[in-house]
Amino acid sequence: DDANVVGNVHGGTILKMIEEAGAIISTRHCNSQGGEPCVAALARVERTDFLSPMCIGEVANVSAEITYTSRHSVEVQVNVMSENILTGAKKVTNKATLWYVPLSLKNVNKVLEVPPIQYVRKEQEDEGKKRYEEQKLDRLETKQRNGDVIFPIINPEPHTVGYSQSSLIHLVGPSDCTLLGFVHGGVTMKLMDEVAGIVAARHCKTNIVTASVDAINFHEKIKKGCVITISGRMTFTSNKSMEIEVFVDADPFVDEPRERYRAVSAFFTYVSLSKEGKPLPVPQLLTETEDEKRRFEEGKGRYLQTKAKRQAQMQQAAQP
Amino acid sequence: DDANVVGNVHGGTILKMIEEAGAIISTRHCNSQGGEPCVAALARVERTDFLSPMCIGEVANVSAEITYTSRHSVEVQVNVMSENILTGAKKVTNKATLWYVPLSLKNVNKVLEVPPIQYVRKEQEDEGKKRYEEQKLDRLETKQRNGDVIFPIINPEPHTVGYSQSSLIHLVGPSDCTLLGFVHGGVTMKLMDEVAGIVAARHCKTNIVTASVDAINFHEKIKKGCVITISGRMTFTSNKSMEIEVFVDADPFVDEPRERYRAVSAFFTYVSLSKEGKPLPVPQLLTETEDEKRRFEEGKGRYLQTKAKRQAQMQQAAQP
Amino acid sequence: DDANVVGNVHGGTILKMIEEAGAIISTRHCNSQGGEPCVAALARVERTDFLSPMCIGEVANVSAEITYTSRHSVEVQVNVMSENILTGAKKVTNKATLWYVPLSLKNVNKVLEVPPIQYVRKEQEDEGKKRYEEQKLDRLETKQRNGDVIFPIINPEPHTVGYSQSSLIHLVGPSDCTLLGFVHGGVTMKLMDEVAGIVAARHCKTNIVTASVDAINFHEKIKKGCVITISGRMTFTSNKSMEIEVFVDADPFVDEPRERYRAVSAFFTYVSLSKEGKPLPVPQLLTETEDEKRRFEEGKGRYLQTKAKRQAQMQQAAQP
Repeated sequence: DDANVVGNVHGGTILKMIEEAGAIISTRHCNSQGGEPCVAALARVERTDFLSPMCIGEVANVSAEITYTSRHSVEVQVNVMSENILTGAKKVTNKATLWYVPLSLKNVNKVLEVPPIQYVRKEQEDEGKKRYEEQKLDRLETKQRNGDVIFPIINPEPHTVGYSQSSLIHLVGPSDCTLLGFVHGGVTMKLMDEVAGIVAARHCKTNIVTASVDAINFHEKIKKGCVITISGRMTFTSNKSMEIEVFVDADPFVDEPRERYRAVSAFFTYVSLSKEGKPLPVPQLLTETEDEKRRFEEGKGRYLQTKAKRQAQMQQAAQP
Repeated sequence: DDANVVGNVHGGTILKMIEEAGAIISTRHCNSQGGEPCVAALARVERTDFLSPMCIGEVANVSAEITYTSRHSVEVQVNVMSENILTGAKKVTNKATLWYVPLSLKNVNKVLEVPPIQYVRKEQEDEGKKRYEEQKLDRLETKQRNGDVIFPIINPEPHTVGYSQSSLIHLVGPSDCTLLGFVHGGVTMKLMDEVAGIVAARHCKTNIVTASVDAINFHEKIKKGCVITISGRMTFTSNKSMEIEVFVDADPFVDEPRERYRAVSAFFTYVSLSKEGKPLPVPQLLTETEDEKRRFEEGKGRYLQTKAKRQAQMQQAAQP
Repeated sequence: DDANVVGNVHGGTILKMIEEAGAIISTRHCNSQGGEPCVAALARVERTDFLSPMCIGEVANVSAEITYTSRHSVEVQVNVMSENILTGAKKVTNKATLWYVPLSLKNVNKVLEVPPIQYVRKEQEDEGKKRYEEQKLDRLETKQRNGDVIFPIINPEPHTVGYSQSSLIHLVGPSDCTLLGFVHGGVTMKLMDEVAGIVAARHCKTNIVTASVDAINFHEKIKKGCVITISGRMTFTSNKSMEIEVFVDADPFVDEPRERYRAVSAFFTYVSLSKEGKPLPVPQLLTETEDEKRRFEEGKGRYLQTKAKRQAQMQQAAQP
């Protein structure tokens, strides 16, 4: 069931559609020159805002375009519009930037070369290269925070971190996987949004929707037959938003001499909505341990940074 | 989600059930004599009318019977009844005739021989043979119109062809496929009905239901890992019905040295319904190009021919 | 669609969740010592009561624990709690005991040895051993009643056995199967509950819910590509409950020199509920043949035995 009580389509479902579109266009591009057949695997999704909710019965228009290629990766821009089929009204739902890497169909550990695209203007290539370098740096950084584990709390107080933290497990089946036998990035993101949504609802006990997702890095592939544990905990609350950190751990418990490992981590931001769709105030998160206080401050930093960026963009847009 | 807002089960879902039943009975028949194991692949569905809508919560009773066998093909008759479990009321939803061809499980390009069935009366065999020859002829003819492509139109006027035309893409996954690794015919038909329904709703902005599907020929198999594009455009409107042409194109973009190709095409007829389930008048399709006018006239031809056939059948049924 | 009209989640969906949790924990345990990789296959589910219905929008908390290991089998205890995320209220939905057997990933016919677990107290091991012996005996007994077949009845009278009996067929696809290519026990149980629910609704024409499931034995594995027929018939009614016997027959109709065989059989108990969720009286089952009368008496025996056990447990619980 892809919708919550009020009838909005979950952010995770939209992320899954975006990823499918991105995987198709980049796999097609990487196979366009003949050569060794390959499948494009999702490496990273840039931060994306959900600008307006999509409702049941609306049709999603997804368009994808390749905007940059490095030697081994493809940048794809995906736009989602929701169309109310009965009124014809269209709205931008969100825009996302995804990075893919072509893996050989014969040898999944071999990264192939990407055929270069043609740019209309030289600046497009330079800007793309800048984005490429920036995301590469960020990928390295986020590998650091990958050791964290969420433990269950007995009898937590309302509005503490332990009160709303949640996790779910999923056995990876064939319909979750690409031709290479690895989980589709979109499937993972849908499950992450599901857990984040449960955390947010447990905290504020109201109807909630995904407002944005911070950059998501896919550090490691997840193979068919793994059990994945998706865990979420609240890190920060502003007056009207909640930030939830989500971890995905893969346990290749059959046929592999490997330990459980951290495959993905990301921050989701949720808002609480009244039945009329108006944003509601959110109860403040009560932090108890030093780690929780530190994460709250870090979340506040991300929140203020995003707010500042958005204001700068609006001012830029307002200039002649 | 298999139902539209008013609560009817989509025609495409019913087509999928029909095809599953047909595939099972014909695969079982073709394997009944021992010999080389095979899977029956859908080659064609004859024209079918949706006599009454099926609603959510009703139980579908599907029964299938083999009615003719040629050397390399099987004709199956499938009947669908809907049963309201709480009142016990039953209605015929539709009857369909499907043609299957047995493909070897070891070599998918090898068509096997079909064990002959026994006929109660000699005329049954003769009538079956006549139907076999007719469909063979029709299959050849429809291969002609297979070159057509649908291009997007910028800012189309309401009720023109470009205004409602739609397409969707789908990455073929393992759960879409038979044991041979090819898409189930029923999965394709469900997607076709989905696109046709979007075209119809965009045109008339009301609740719509599938009234009938013209004969569908499956020209080419579609392999796991392909991307399929399903496109639909309106070809004809009568006072109370809309005809939509649907194309399915397969793009084997990984691991295959092949161009995108046309796999299936068909005509779907939709009607517009009020909230009380009464048929509503349909806005007339505005044709602009010569091609659109020609297709409108061809659609009118099919419409009048079907109408004449149905009247002939009713008169025949009314005779003593 | 996982819920009936009133909004309860079907018992079959809960059984599927339970089985997935049991399969994960026992597969993980059996692979924990290294050695030959294996997948745990469901052999049996002990009788389970559905203590309170789970509703849409509630979150299910599933916890699983290994409670006994014999040389070749694992006993798992799974508890399901439903949590209303908006109020925070939690209720026990049901508790189930499942038995798994580890099958080699390389050779599916080879049963591997189970690493022994540590018991806190010696009595735990002894009690587990007793449960192990009991279920082993019961498995042997139920193999007897496996020859029965359900034939369709023409124009049955209301409330007879033939009136409500039902069956459905399902083609086993990849998403139904484990890594070994055999149907997940949970998928089978979900289909069984679906058929039992149709039988119950046809009999009493009201909203119905699963009250309990008797022990289910999985006699034979079901392979990908099989067609399974799930048939149900009512065997007994008390004032407020209905017992339905469900059979699962597998037909490996492609690529296997095997006859159709009985894979699973079980008894489901349903109750009829008013719109307010109160139990309603159930129309008495009309038995016609000698077999039907005998099965009614056997069902009555099971009903009275369960009732007596429950009363004994309640008295025990009430003692100081």
